[in-house]
Amino acid sequence: MECEDETRITFSQLKEECQQLAQKLANLHINKGDHIAILSPNDATMIKIVHALSYLGAVAVLLNTKLTQNELQYQIVDADVKVLLYHESQADKAEGLHIAKKCNFSKISGLPRKHTLLQEELHLDDPFTIIYTSGTTGFPKGVVHTYGNHWWSAIGSALNLGLSEKDKWLAVLPYFHVGGLSIFMKNVIYGMPVYLMEKFDVEGVHRAIMEKGITIISVVTVMVQRLLNYLGEANYPKTLRCMLLGGGPAPISLLKKAQAKHIPIVQSYGMTETSSQIVTLSFQDALRKVGSSGKALFPAQVKINKQHEDEAIGEIIVKGPMVTKGYYNREETNEKSFAGGWLATGDLGYLDEEGFLYVVDRRNDLIISGGENIYPTEVENALASMSGIREAGVVGKKSQQWGQVPVAFVALDNADLTKEKIIAYLKDLLAPYKIPKEIVFVEALPRNASNKLWRSKMKEWVEN
Amino acid sequence: MECEDETRITFSQLKEECQQLAQKLANLHINKGDHIAILSPNDATMIKIVHALSYLGAVAVLLNTKLTQNELQYQIVDADVKVLLYHESQADKAEGLHIAKKCNFSKISGLPRKHTLLQEELHLDDPFTIIYTSGTTGFPKGVVHTYGNHWWSAIGSALNLGLSEKDKWLAVLPYFHVGGLSIFMKNVIYGMPVYLMEKFDVEGVHRAIMEKGITIISVVTVMVQRLLNYLGEANYPKTLRCMLLGGGPAPISLLKKAQAKHIPIVQSYGMTETSSQIVTLSFQDALRKVGSSGKALFPAQVKINKQHEDEAIGEIIVKGPMVTKGYYNREETNEKSFAGGWLATGDLGYLDEEGFLYVVDRRNDLIISGGENIYPTEVENALASMSGIREAGVVGKKSQQWGQVPVAFVALDNADLTKEKIIAYLKDLLAPYKIPKEIVFVEALPRNASNKLWRSKMKEWVEN
Repeated sequence: MECEDETRITFSQLKEECQQLAQKLANLHINKGDHIAILSPNDATMIKIVHALSYLGAVAVLLNTKLTQNELQYQIVDADVKVLLYHESQADKAEGLHIAKKCNFSKISGLPRKHTLLQEELHLDDPFTIIYTSGTTGFPKGVVHTYGNHWWSAIGSALNLGLSEKDKWLAVLPYFHVGGLSIFMKNVIYGMPVYLMEKFDVEGVHRAIMEKGITIISVVTVMVQRLLNYLGEANYPKTLRCMLLGGGPAPISLLKKAQAKHIPIVQSYGMTETSSQIVTLSFQDALRKVGSSGKALFPAQVKINKQHEDEAIGEIIVKGPMVTKGYYNREETNEKSFAGGWLATGDLGYLDEEGFLYVVDRRNDLIISGGENIYPTEVENALASMSGIREAGVVGKKSQQWGQVPVAFVALDNADLTKEKIIAYLKDLLAPYKIPKEIVFVEALPRNASNKLWRSKMKEWVEN
Repeated sequence: MECEDETRITFSQLKEECQQLAQKLANLHINKGDHIAILSPNDATMIKIVHALSYLGAVAVLLNTKLTQNELQYQIVDADVKVLLYHESQADKAEGLHIAKKCNFSKISGLPRKHTLLQEELHLDDPFTIIYTSGTTGFPKGVVHTYGNHWWSAIGSALNLGLSEKDKWLAVLPYFHVGGLSIFMKNVIYGMPVYLMEKFDVEGVHRAIMEKGITIISVVTVMVQRLLNYLGEANYPKTLRCMLLGGGPAPISLLKKAQAKHIPIVQSYGMTETSSQIVTLSFQDALRKVGSSGKALFPAQVKINKQHEDEAIGEIIVKGPMVTKGYYNREETNEKSFAGGWLATGDLGYLDEEGFLYVVDRRNDLIISGGENIYPTEVENALASMSGIREAGVVGKKSQQWGQVPVAFVALDNADLTKEKIIAYLKDLLAPYKIPKEIVFVEALPRNASNKLWRSKMKEWVEN
């Protein structure tokens, strides 16, 4: 582990420190199977506490620091949390939460080491973490990840991306999300160095890539956009062998721009329920299959659940040992969502003749207009390909005549663009019914805590 | 897959061919769980049949072509084999074997494709192969490998050696041994090309390394010796990143010679019961820990079972998901050999302060002389370090005075060497009780079918 402030710890130090932390945490009467919440920004101690809990057999409930107090309280109650551990920076929020026992990180480190039997072996079927789905729709649900889910996720990724003794993975995504956390599972499973960053700031990440021997970085689309702008005419070192892109589909124009600069973007598809990526486009196929999310990580499987045999597009369903066995305390949902071991993702997509997955859209975002299906991503890609448009989001708006019509939110780089010019540009690219009926100029698109495009917020705007 | 005769098949062809083979084999009424013996030299069809059997859920019993008919008959009966499949070259032996159903490879390929439900998913706990231990002592036992044993073996190796899209593994060890077979498990699990060779001939293997882009080759000591001699003053291409050395301890003099030529020898320790290597010396530690077999492959464990706390050396015991759950139909032995999930290997060794394993000797070969322990390997290493000695083997001989005394078998490169000169040379290296009491000059040391030094044969020589 290597941090921004130049501190480094070796694997044997990490083991030693985590075992000591476990002995300190034992003072809080944490037992095997207990649910322990952690509220922390990206921080090495947070990760050490996650490992320490594994020595006690406890389950880490990872809380999102961007949530309101009400939302945090809901998760603490819902997950039957026994103790809350929090970073000093979260003291204000933590103090307002109702829970029998709480303890901040520096208080933990001051505790004496209690003699405790630490687990020497882990069982793959035991739960290790609970992470709530971002919950852009409905109430958040706690996704339970076993050690095995994390293990198979890390192995599936290594079989796809390869593994080199030169690898160093930059961890800048939020660690309380599975995409960020999974880097630390790879860290200890691969025996691979990681470089920790508290948060994404384009200059800092750029400098880390240029100077720190980073070979792989996990990113979301908006990060790539900012990095590419910052990079300008320069190039990244050749040692950067993978920008693993998650968190929803990326505009094709961005992928092409990255390709032109030989930036090794690897698109992927995954969600909290799949312990991060489950479908990934390998290096070999990147040029040949632009826009695809790739193939299922071995040994996972992906299929399309079609309502009618003659349709190409249907709901994406996935199965594999990295897929959660279910949500905590949601028996009814689990029965529905995991029929026959297959997770119904709620996303729409299709497989091409070689079995490559193309994610078309989130099912909930599908716009149906006059009996025609409109996939917002397609319209967004068209908008984003226009010079002068920085980013674009499209949602449906109720329409008496058509059921729904598409509305676009657009952030500009070039103030000279007008709605008329944009519509004229789109007319060459899209069928008439797909052209947005309204275009709203905004400073920036709304994004949720994982930096995903927050469509439900745009829908609210449209409806009010 | 790439063969010596330049034929190549892609992964999708391999899948297609194996599924067709499975449909052909279905004519022989092969059902899930049936034991099907395969008698074949190294051959692509043999590997395809192994995969084909997995589509039917049958278990492949891999027979050693070097065995006599009596020995083969024993294994066929012991393993409850239902059908024998054999390569044309083995027709003479196969015809003499008593078994209800047999079929040669070309006859299989001529069978019609029967409509059969092929397995779409494998279960890690299901048995996949049975391989008999080489049985230098006692009756051979059938080691049952599950799909999971092979899977975890391949993954443990990848986590240690890394995995590159440039990798191509040369398969020249016998495929009916687990060391050879494991290459084909890696082949399909990693999605990595393999280069098939029927048998070890030094010129052919040399040429393959020089010309075929081989990055990894599995070898045993005697192969390295011959390759190094053949290589002479030349060097291997830098793309050769690993010579994975198994099949018993290698003389330190050989390792040093390889190191001087920058040949990336990676020593390992394993056995049929561990689905090939379970302890391996990583690249990083090769120079620092010459003579060690390394550390347990993640997530396996290795310990030393000592009779007295103050001894450093004891029996090596291992545990991990690549270790067989037991021998076929040997309940009593299984209870003894797998106490608490730990396999008692019968080998002697110690761990250094950093946890690196040093294999000292096979327990059965330990020579006890006048109350002092003599480890034959130590004496052999001393002999092998003498210029003019090609190879040396040491065993114990009964002695009225001392219980046992060491006897050396020596093959010379230099006919001028005398017993007196050798004894004089050893006196500087070994304590008096370790010096062989007899030295016997031989053309070559006896080796078993896996090219391991066949100590029990030397013991017979000594006793007669």
